[in-house]
Amino acid sequence: MRGFKSTVRLDEAILRFSSAIHFEKPAVEPVSTQEALGRILGEDVISQVDVPPFYKSAVDGYAVHAEDTFGASRTSPSILTLIGEIEAGDKPDLEVKRGEAVKIATGAAVSKGADAVVMLEYTKTIDPHRVEIWTPVTPSENVTRKGEDVHAGEIVLKKGVRIRPQDVGILVMLGKTVVNVVKKPRISVFSTGNELVEKEEDVKAGETVDVNRPILLSMIKEAGAIGLDKGIVKDQFEEIRRKMEEGLAEADAVVVTGGTSVGARDLVPEVVNSIGKPGILVHGVSMRPGMPTGLGVVNRKPVISLPGNPVAAMIAFEVFAKPLISRLMEAQEELTLKIKGRLTRRIASVQGFRTFNRVLVRRLGDQVSVEPIRLTGSGILTSMTKANGILVIPEDVEGYEAGEEVEVSLLRPVEEG
Amino acid sequence: MRGFKSTVRLDEAILRFSSAIHFEKPAVEPVSTQEALGRILGEDVISQVDVPPFYKSAVDGYAVHAEDTFGASRTSPSILTLIGEIEAGDKPDLEVKRGEAVKIATGAAVSKGADAVVMLEYTKTIDPHRVEIWTPVTPSENVTRKGEDVHAGEIVLKKGVRIRPQDVGILVMLGKTVVNVVKKPRISVFSTGNELVEKEEDVKAGETVDVNRPILLSMIKEAGAIGLDKGIVKDQFEEIRRKMEEGLAEADAVVVTGGTSVGARDLVPEVVNSIGKPGILVHGVSMRPGMPTGLGVVNRKPVISLPGNPVAAMIAFEVFAKPLISRLMEAQEELTLKIKGRLTRRIASVQGFRTFNRVLVRRLGDQVSVEPIRLTGSGILTSMTKANGILVIPEDVEGYEAGEEVEVSLLRPVEEG
Repeated sequence: MRGFKSTVRLDEAILRFSSAIHFEKPAVEPVSTQEALGRILGEDVISQVDVPPFYKSAVDGYAVHAEDTFGASRTSPSILTLIGEIEAGDKPDLEVKRGEAVKIATGAAVSKGADAVVMLEYTKTIDPHRVEIWTPVTPSENVTRKGEDVHAGEIVLKKGVRIRPQDVGILVMLGKTVVNVVKKPRISVFSTGNELVEKEEDVKAGETVDVNRPILLSMIKEAGAIGLDKGIVKDQFEEIRRKMEEGLAEADAVVVTGGTSVGARDLVPEVVNSIGKPGILVHGVSMRPGMPTGLGVVNRKPVISLPGNPVAAMIAFEVFAKPLISRLMEAQEELTLKIKGRLTRRIASVQGFRTFNRVLVRRLGDQVSVEPIRLTGSGILTSMTKANGILVIPEDVEGYEAGEEVEVSLLRPVEEG
Repeated sequence: MRGFKSTVRLDEAILRFSSAIHFEKPAVEPVSTQEALGRILGEDVISQVDVPPFYKSAVDGYAVHAEDTFGASRTSPSILTLIGEIEAGDKPDLEVKRGEAVKIATGAAVSKGADAVVMLEYTKTIDPHRVEIWTPVTPSENVTRKGEDVHAGEIVLKKGVRIRPQDVGILVMLGKTVVNVVKKPRISVFSTGNELVEKEEDVKAGETVDVNRPILLSMIKEAGAIGLDKGIVKDQFEEIRRKMEEGLAEADAVVVTGGTSVGARDLVPEVVNSIGKPGILVHGVSMRPGMPTGLGVVNRKPVISLPGNPVAAMIAFEVFAKPLISRLMEAQEELTLKIKGRLTRRIASVQGFRTFNRVLVRRLGDQVSVEPIRLTGSGILTSMTKANGILVIPEDVEGYEAGEEVEVSLLRPVEEG
């Protein structure tokens, strides 16, 4: 990797990039509710109805007038007249008068007149027409009120949420069998490099399998977008330019790896600048790995130029491309999985750079340990599969000492033992 | 909900259930590597090759004999004879002798003879045939060794991992274009209840839309299995029995909701016991919500009988069905997303029961607050969409005080501000 004369701080890089992008309102498309799982909701969902639409018993028991139970106890029960029974799904036709009770099942509509339900275990039937009540209930006790779950006019789900199983349930509950979700953005992906080949079986001396495209296409899929595989191009200005123009035409953004410091030339930045304005906004970011990252906008579309080495490409994708995809979808922030633990050994970092260190997090009882993975180059892809976390060291910190508590973003489950 | 005469502790319930199931070795199927994302790896992946297959430069610079640089500095440089240039992808034909250097690009094969690379910024070309070296390098410096990433014969990915983007990269790198993944288990799902209807537009007085099936089918999908939607049946022994037998025949396990305490009858447990041995193993678990959960095994297949109310069904699914699906796939443990915060108010719980409380987790600066969501019944589905976390209170704890630090499992991102 060639040295950069000047690099831009990561926060400044994000700011320059995102303020140059003209974000459009994301397009939506209707999908069936059951297919909406995991998609980004494209509309506020407002209930047209009360849920439940009637007063509903939360328990198996007897629907009563609460006042009829005041002062009741096992030794001095209230005795009520049993006028009938109501199961879940039955129409609530019976009317309960003072001194009366109706046997009621969980989920059944509470009979007219009744304002509370006594749980079965606090009652005893004396004969088919009389029931003993052993405990007082307050009005509304064991009753789910009409509209308690959702009232008509309420915003139940907000635009931008990633739809979870419970949201699918809510949509079905409200009668929404079809829902508008945000269309998946399309991201063109290609790799540059004379040394790159498609398959391991084709590798000749000096060549390397291109792992960046499969990795980035997978990361794009996980982020909720569609990756368009545009293949490998040689380190030649015209080839890269043709591919870049094709990629821009077909997608909402382009992600390209390599070609940032080829011999004396920065081919990808040169290509981006040759296509249009504003072109490359950032080239070289104060981060490790990921320093040779370039960010630009051309034909009103964002271009992210990632380093050729796969670990650096993954980390820079996470930092720049994933938030871009969320922003294109106007999606709410995602869960970040973090854990605190103590470093097993000192870890150093370069002042002024944000460093992303691969670590192995282990839990033993209550103790969580964080072990930096030793490696020589950021090109070592297995460091990303052996690691289960990333420890970020901010620009103004020179490193952490052994034993210090640090917070790690998790890639995989913590190892036990 | 009817009271249970005796309930079984949650850990004991899991133990009885899982020890009665005869787990078979999971079936695998070949898929293309790019389609394997998110699937469970069905085989150990062992590398046949060294990666990289050659000594590779980690930087742009000059390939040299390290010894020729010893003692070099800016004021007293080593001067080496430039014998050529090698780009990434080139065959490494040149041989570097003592006193010589080859210009080399990142990723290129290090020339024969050379054992280290000096970074470009610590060098200066004097003329086309000579280069000044300003810094000493040690043998292997800036060189990625043959087999450093992966050596032939190494287990690179272990059976049972959920395949992440970096794993897709590793598989491509090793030339595995097809990989064996675990077949998705099939889980039959049906709901019982006279009050249940399929769609909101069909709801008549006293009836309720069945939200459990759409929720559980979504949860099954997220857990990596295939849900078979077997619809709604009435609370009638014969209907439930027919559906249960159909569900068992078509799938690896059955999940059914409702029918655990219908009037005086426990229809689902009765059905399970009528089909075969050992039948229902647990009926009634010391957990809230979720107490009416039943667990059984019949025709060598697990049956999970969930409560009819959707929140209880979701929580009991998470506790019993999700680990079952992982176990059927022999999948490694999944990430659990937890956060610590302080309770905004007291939260009580019933001694001897494990309780699952819906909470709202907010972050303000460094402070994380955990607010229990007030609600009357576990039937309130919106409590699962308003909540972003679940606070579990163990059996031997009576509750937590306001201000106490608690750990919450996250359902959705933490609210900021």
